[in-house]
Amino acid sequence: MSIAVAGTVALDSVKTPYGEAKEILGGSATYFSLAARHFTKVGLIAVVGKDFPARHKKLFTIHGISTEGLITEERGKTFRWTGEYRDNWNEAYTLRTDLNVLSDFNPETPPEYRHFPFLFLANIDPDIQQKVLSQMNHTKAVFCDSMNFWIHNKRESLQKVIEKVHGIFLNESEARDLTEDANLFQCALKIQKMGPKVVCIKKGDHGAILLNGPSVFICPIYPWTQVKDPTGAGDSFAGGFLGYLSQCGKMTDRNLRIATAYGAVMASFTVEDFGPKRLLNLSQREIHERFVKLRQVARF
Amino acid sequence: MSIAVAGTVALDSVKTPYGEAKEILGGSATYFSLAARHFTKVGLIAVVGKDFPARHKKLFTIHGISTEGLITEERGKTFRWTGEYRDNWNEAYTLRTDLNVLSDFNPETPPEYRHFPFLFLANIDPDIQQKVLSQMNHTKAVFCDSMNFWIHNKRESLQKVIEKVHGIFLNESEARDLTEDANLFQCALKIQKMGPKVVCIKKGDHGAILLNGPSVFICPIYPWTQVKDPTGAGDSFAGGFLGYLSQCGKMTDRNLRIATAYGAVMASFTVEDFGPKRLLNLSQREIHERFVKLRQVARF
Repeated sequence: MSIAVAGTVALDSVKTPYGEAKEILGGSATYFSLAARHFTKVGLIAVVGKDFPARHKKLFTIHGISTEGLITEERGKTFRWTGEYRDNWNEAYTLRTDLNVLSDFNPETPPEYRHFPFLFLANIDPDIQQKVLSQMNHTKAVFCDSMNFWIHNKRESLQKVIEKVHGIFLNESEARDLTEDANLFQCALKIQKMGPKVVCIKKGDHGAILLNGPSVFICPIYPWTQVKDPTGAGDSFAGGFLGYLSQCGKMTDRNLRIATAYGAVMASFTVEDFGPKRLLNLSQREIHERFVKLRQVARF
Repeated sequence: MSIAVAGTVALDSVKTPYGEAKEILGGSATYFSLAARHFTKVGLIAVVGKDFPARHKKLFTIHGISTEGLITEERGKTFRWTGEYRDNWNEAYTLRTDLNVLSDFNPETPPEYRHFPFLFLANIDPDIQQKVLSQMNHTKAVFCDSMNFWIHNKRESLQKVIEKVHGIFLNESEARDLTEDANLFQCALKIQKMGPKVVCIKKGDHGAILLNGPSVFICPIYPWTQVKDPTGAGDSFAGGFLGYLSQCGKMTDRNLRIATAYGAVMASFTVEDFGPKRLLNLSQREIHERFVKLRQVARF
């Protein structure tokens, strides 16, 4: 089954203890779709400026991602994010954000996508998330992500999105900010009460917690990864998760647990190099091998 | 099979966001033995002062723990620890330490214990750990624990202990201090190179990592616990772990993984109340129920 993703396509400049990269392909919808396309058909809903390199756009289509919903705004520049990771890999320091074309992005979901059974509202202004959501028909499952900025600055709009989704991904600090609770398990329970049955809290190198109704799953990380750049780990996680879930079609508890493990596997690849590089040359076999090893890590 | 434990028996004063307790029974050997005795026969090697309440000593024997190796030093006072937990449950702030009788504790392992197949060197001066180790004959498996204070102040002596043990328990910050590495998995690999085949890093509410030779296991926490006082969680973890292992007798990879899960289960009980209270009124059934639920949490 197919999945549509609404989010950002960006040009990122990133510095980590292992080096730096300038103006490379980034954004929440980019990482998501490049991870999810290993499992299912993906349709992109995003905006870029006239300066967006043609090779980047081509890269999506080469990897089977539909760019019909990728608008090129001729009068503006592409969204840019500049960030740094220091000793704590789990926390990014945003040095600069240039919204550019993102500031008045008016999403137009292509007719083909409107009947897709799965939708991911990646991290972007919750007003945009709501608009995309209203354009979809008969979605079987909608998941969303967000970030501290929207939690603090557009809380009401974000809350309306959260009420309507089946599932949500948040990282540790976002979950704490949203619920004002220190205990992550309690955070997840509180978020369930806001609407979504499925709550997934990503804990960086401590793995992830998944709540599906009363069922609780704690997913380990793939421990053999050498992190070079954690940018996009969370979106790749969501890509592996929802990519696998759309492939299965059914949201059973078993499928949701396996989906979480595929999320962890895809994130483990992304962080091994700068940008989405590692997601581009991945084989099904490599993905499967890490999944099998991760299962072994959790077994007792 | 039986296990001997050398460590501290203390009177603790603890403050947490949930309340405080003064001069309650504490110490590394206390928590360890009260957790391990649910699985196996335990012999205590420790020292207390003349002020140590008789009811505490009786408590050990009531619960089947041998106090033959518990010396009462008539000329001194019992070791005291005063600490506080703030917003971060994983880190204790030590407000005061009164070593008292601990400062010239000369352990004398009772003849009966010397042939016990399992030994746990709980957190205490590494010189004392070495002395106990030298008094044992034919131990099948020796595990140790330590703390930042000994890593920084008695590094050489501690290193000699680490070289000789089969397994070691450390928490996150201790593992990082010992290896000067930020990545916990890399820390564990470095510690294996120091000697122990089995390295267990306890990550508080993020679970635990177990390395057994090349085998890696990541153990989740029991998520339904409401933490009131984390004191003794690590020693109860070791108690559940080694208690189960001595019960089995064999250090297979499967047993070590199950042992880690029992460690997590015993820690989850300890933290629910101040002091070792919760370990005293536990039934086999309660322990088993949490173990089964923890297994379900990890399954995919």
